[in-house]
Amino acid sequence: MSHNSFGHLFRVTTWGESHGPAIGCVVDGLPPGLSFTQGDIQDLLDKRRPGQSRFTTQRREPDEVKVLSGVVEGPNLGELISTGTPIALEIQNVDQRSKDYANIAQSYRPGHADIAYDMKYGLRDHRGGGRSSARETACRVAAGALARLVVPGVTIRGALVQIGADRIDRANWDWDEVSNNPFFCPDREAAARWEGLLDGVRKSGSSVGAVIEIVAENVPAGLGAPLYGKLDADIAANLMSINAVKGVEIGEGFAAAELSGEDNADEIRNGPDGKPVFLSNHAGGILGGISTGQPIVARFAVKPTSSILTPRRSIDANGQEVDVMTKGRHDPCVGIRAVPIGEAMIACALADHALRHRGQTGR
Amino acid sequence: MSHNSFGHLFRVTTWGESHGPAIGCVVDGLPPGLSFTQGDIQDLLDKRRPGQSRFTTQRREPDEVKVLSGVVEGPNLGELISTGTPIALEIQNVDQRSKDYANIAQSYRPGHADIAYDMKYGLRDHRGGGRSSARETACRVAAGALARLVVPGVTIRGALVQIGADRIDRANWDWDEVSNNPFFCPDREAAARWEGLLDGVRKSGSSVGAVIEIVAENVPAGLGAPLYGKLDADIAANLMSINAVKGVEIGEGFAAAELSGEDNADEIRNGPDGKPVFLSNHAGGILGGISTGQPIVARFAVKPTSSILTPRRSIDANGQEVDVMTKGRHDPCVGIRAVPIGEAMIACALADHALRHRGQTGR
Amino acid sequence: MSHNSFGHLFRVTTWGESHGPAIGCVVDGLPPGLSFTQGDIQDLLDKRRPGQSRFTTQRREPDEVKVLSGVVEGPNLGELISTGTPIALEIQNVDQRSKDYANIAQSYRPGHADIAYDMKYGLRDHRGGGRSSARETACRVAAGALARLVVPGVTIRGALVQIGADRIDRANWDWDEVSNNPFFCPDREAAARWEGLLDGVRKSGSSVGAVIEIVAENVPAGLGAPLYGKLDADIAANLMSINAVKGVEIGEGFAAAELSGEDNADEIRNGPDGKPVFLSNHAGGILGGISTGQPIVARFAVKPTSSILTPRRSIDANGQEVDVMTKGRHDPCVGIRAVPIGEAMIACALADHALRHRGQTGR
Amino acid sequence: MSHNSFGHLFRVTTWGESHGPAIGCVVDGLPPGLSFTQGDIQDLLDKRRPGQSRFTTQRREPDEVKVLSGVVEGPNLGELISTGTPIALEIQNVDQRSKDYANIAQSYRPGHADIAYDMKYGLRDHRGGGRSSARETACRVAAGALARLVVPGVTIRGALVQIGADRIDRANWDWDEVSNNPFFCPDREAAARWEGLLDGVRKSGSSVGAVIEIVAENVPAGLGAPLYGKLDADIAANLMSINAVKGVEIGEGFAAAELSGEDNADEIRNGPDGKPVFLSNHAGGILGGISTGQPIVARFAVKPTSSILTPRRSIDANGQEVDVMTKGRHDPCVGIRAVPIGEAMIACALADHALRHRGQTGR
Repeated sequence: MSHNSFGHLFRVTTWGESHGPAIGCVVDGLPPGLSFTQGDIQDLLDKRRPGQSRFTTQRREPDEVKVLSGVVEGPNLGELISTGTPIALEIQNVDQRSKDYANIAQSYRPGHADIAYDMKYGLRDHRGGGRSSARETACRVAAGALARLVVPGVTIRGALVQIGADRIDRANWDWDEVSNNPFFCPDREAAARWEGLLDGVRKSGSSVGAVIEIVAENVPAGLGAPLYGKLDADIAANLMSINAVKGVEIGEGFAAAELSGEDNADEIRNGPDGKPVFLSNHAGGILGGISTGQPIVARFAVKPTSSILTPRRSIDANGQEVDVMTKGRHDPCVGIRAVPIGEAMIACALADHALRHRGQTGR
Repeated sequence: MSHNSFGHLFRVTTWGESHGPAIGCVVDGLPPGLSFTQGDIQDLLDKRRPGQSRFTTQRREPDEVKVLSGVVEGPNLGELISTGTPIALEIQNVDQRSKDYANIAQSYRPGHADIAYDMKYGLRDHRGGGRSSARETACRVAAGALARLVVPGVTIRGALVQIGADRIDRANWDWDEVSNNPFFCPDREAAARWEGLLDGVRKSGSSVGAVIEIVAENVPAGLGAPLYGKLDADIAANLMSINAVKGVEIGEGFAAAELSGEDNADEIRNGPDGKPVFLSNHAGGILGGISTGQPIVARFAVKPTSSILTPRRSIDANGQEVDVMTKGRHDPCVGIRAVPIGEAMIACALADHALRHRGQTGR
Repeated sequence: MSHNSFGHLFRVTTWGESHGPAIGCVVDGLPPGLSFTQGDIQDLLDKRRPGQSRFTTQRREPDEVKVLSGVVEGPNLGELISTGTPIALEIQNVDQRSKDYANIAQSYRPGHADIAYDMKYGLRDHRGGGRSSARETACRVAAGALARLVVPGVTIRGALVQIGADRIDRANWDWDEVSNNPFFCPDREAAARWEGLLDGVRKSGSSVGAVIEIVAENVPAGLGAPLYGKLDADIAANLMSINAVKGVEIGEGFAAAELSGEDNADEIRNGPDGKPVFLSNHAGGILGGISTGQPIVARFAVKPTSSILTPRRSIDANGQEVDVMTKGRHDPCVGIRAVPIGEAMIACALADHALRHRGQTGR
Repeated sequence: MSHNSFGHLFRVTTWGESHGPAIGCVVDGLPPGLSFTQGDIQDLLDKRRPGQSRFTTQRREPDEVKVLSGVVEGPNLGELISTGTPIALEIQNVDQRSKDYANIAQSYRPGHADIAYDMKYGLRDHRGGGRSSARETACRVAAGALARLVVPGVTIRGALVQIGADRIDRANWDWDEVSNNPFFCPDREAAARWEGLLDGVRKSGSSVGAVIEIVAENVPAGLGAPLYGKLDADIAANLMSINAVKGVEIGEGFAAAELSGEDNADEIRNGPDGKPVFLSNHAGGILGGISTGQPIVARFAVKPTSSILTPRRSIDANGQEVDVMTKGRHDPCVGIRAVPIGEAMIACALADHALRHRGQTGR
């Protein structure tokens, strides 16, 4: 058991607070002989990096990752080869404005984790949320970059499908659009609407929630386990472990409750290559906790951040009733940057289960 | 790691198939000195037991639990006292009609786990779903009865809040109604409607999904951990590990995506006893992965069972294209019996975190 | 974490007390498609079974194992095929004379676990040692029988190499002798001496310690992990978890402290098949925590049982000073029956690491 | 599961190689509110630091530890207060002479882990032993410094009791002597002999083994668990995980095999304070896997290092037969520096079990 690790055979342990000297993680279980570069990790970190548009926090962090262990140099320039020993990744904290937090040091932001931390531990690092800061998610993205090496051939992509009450039109879904707008939105029209929506939220110092969808294609069949090592249960835990997430769905998700057995059944025929072909994917690629080879589809809901300019009633650490507003730099919609994080958490779940599958079956 | 266990300090390992001689579980971590009777477990098992109304499978299983270890006799009649050693619980399988399954032995039910099992393991026990049978959930309910001993004073109650597309009216919520109808429905009017709805589903050999809500009251503040041991992440995994579950929500869940930060913030005031009082509970009792003392609210969506009378296109284990229909006795809505199962999974998560909390804080 | 389980991918959870209705275990992680019979398990259980000579406890337990889950019937008579789901094994307790323990119910046997149990838990099942009874080891032997299926081709054999201060002469080592005497002794001359030695111990109601050696041949190279998943660390924990064990050695063990680097080095040459051949085996088959393909050699020391007829000074549960003697049926030398138990624990460690190796290397 | 972590509630994950930029560890589970300084860790690291006498490797590493997370500043100068979040510790590698290893890059040192690594992973970082280097043990010592905070009042001390075949005279045992000689030797006379012994070994480029004893006093009773979470089983695994260790003993250890039940029994009387007093400590403070409050006594045997100047027959990575000698700077007796490492591993085991005890008993 660990309260700061996840995964079993592909196991990630993260450490660090928002306003300490650095954050980092240890990736334990990357098989030997896998080739990558520091740039492979950096590219994914850059997707998550704050300050890239006016719709994310203006904190400027280069988020430059250092690989401290677990590799030898490969024959090509910058090539690293995993040795099978733990890979330590580290990212310096650069742009910390701790004074922004002076006024909330002792007051609890309604909807924020800080009161719960004090209830549990009796003390906490209040600067920038300390351990509860979304900054920790950079480690997940870095680990996810290594996880992708374990399941080569798999494509893991995420998209924002809803901001506030405004959902995309699935008929417009175009993966190529995702990189054309600051929202990872696959629907060009929705993205255009969201610019206005988010500008309004941002200017009023408010915040708004979102829904993210992750799709993993070419996942081998057979990953997972029947009951408590279900692939979807691990995906649910991985996604729910991301800050501000309040709901997780696989395939049809909550909509499955409204279907009849006839409509929900993904019928099967033989494909041209003799392999089974499913005629639909209500299951989201997982049956009985085990992948079927269909695309894995997972969604998660992110609540609006609790750091807002409008004063809300609260108390402080001394039990005095106060009004709290947050002046620090924050994301008006943390759901946006949750897209690469969600991809990373799915990648880690798949890597772990790909390695476990070998042990489970002895093959 | 185990693929058939869950929890860490309160740890449950289940075993058994639908059509073997018995099913059972080992509950490891129940603290010593706790008092209970076999009847305490049996009462909860009886809530889940099939064949109690025409809306659940007609399989007749007494589901009589035996306590095989981990206890000494207490001074009162039938009283058992836990010794701190593992408690083995066992339930005989009685009413097995394996011949019902002869026709689906080799064909894969669309939407069912059986094709995934074959993909993973290369073989499976096809009788009654084998290990993927919902029969396994009896063990969860039995373990949950012991879990409740670990967190005394906590009230854990579940209710069915939606069948198909028909949701309850929350204004009608009355916990006392839950035991007055065969659906665990807290809304008397909805329960009346559901009788007709389910009769239709049952008679046509179809099936339908559902949504269950579990509420845990008087949970101590401080249970959980910031990131990968989040109480809500463990609840999500526990609920997603129940057969047929496709979605999980905490508090507002997916609806939180539509809220503004102002609306989502649960404001705080001082209560008459000087303790913090939250003015709302959008968070569902958990902030930053840690319980706050507010009621914990979790919901999960259950898909319609894949065992239906209408033939669906599929293949068999030899790759031949076939049509499949299921004649075995099945629940038209497995969501109904999922209510006590969901309660048990929440109880187990709370018991585990209550014990972990002591280790985490050294208190 | 579990306090009653061991192993990771091949994971065994045991339950049960000496004087409850039954004992048993759940073996989680046996890969699918492995063939065995109930008799394969029974044969190994019979080696450990008490009452087979005058040198072990006269308690008569048939120790008949039942396989309750995780298998389907194979094509041959009595053949079982593993399905990859957990295998529950159960053994009824038959010959329980609880009254033998009435006089020690409240008094602590010096050298026995019972005072420690009370210190920890505040209560215990005093009948026959309860959970601390060596009876639990029957479950280990049963699990070990399944573990051997995971590493086919490996030969795991144990022998008693010392009783009291009397050691075998290694020049006399003959594996065939092991089944020719009631001590699992590979040295015919030592076995002859031990008959007299043990008769003396037994008749005086005393007890004596022993040393057991386990040798595993044809173990594949590469099992283990560099630091905290060292194969020898897991072997050490597995053996130390057996009742009454006070020391564990790998290869030269404590004698390695007396060697020079030159003498301890196992030199390497190429064998006729081009594979490396070690010219000695001081390492006991493990270097840096990883198997090398040489025979794995482990030894463990068993203390004399604390159940003796000679009164020893002690206290009772009320803090009164008393003299304690034990009248129950006990082994004069528990080390004898520890031989098949040690084999089983090594088999389980190898099975676990064989499965882990696949996950670690992705091969 | 992790191959680079140990402990459950007090969990340490280490990373890094001998010749990378740094080594480090993440300590997960230190309870909140504990006070310490960087110096507290540094003092223990300095005990283990190489190059402090002519009897350890001449590699010069300041081994300066940095605390990167998991703390807030306390009111006193340099005071750090744990927050309950993971503590990342990092130590830069400074004095790396990789060229020393050029000649053994491709050849396997007999008795060394490098051939086993290649057998497992197919590649390795050969510089300075890579991950198998004893340099990793600095992380253990640092983690052990934090572990001691969890069990205040406990005294954990280690001593070298044997070098080669030369054992201390236990009648001379004086803890104060341990810091008076470069061997952590409690026997002044033995220490004097060892100077000559080790000078001979060192000058001839040879190496020699040793035995270390660790004693933990004032350990609370009740730590541990009956079977697979035995305190002594975890101590055995922790000690066996230290490089070059080949044997572990608790209390009498292997000598217990030679005792009769009468002699081995630690008789019990009431002490002046009404608490039980044991009249001897053959058990080494642990009965049935659970601490009794007596001093915990553990010993472990360290083999002679395989890095010696005398050529030994071996092969290289291409399968060519070669002679190997090691020119790098090495300890003639790695057992010396193993003393603080052993202390640390015992401290970690006690911290873990102290936290687990709370969860096990619900107290």
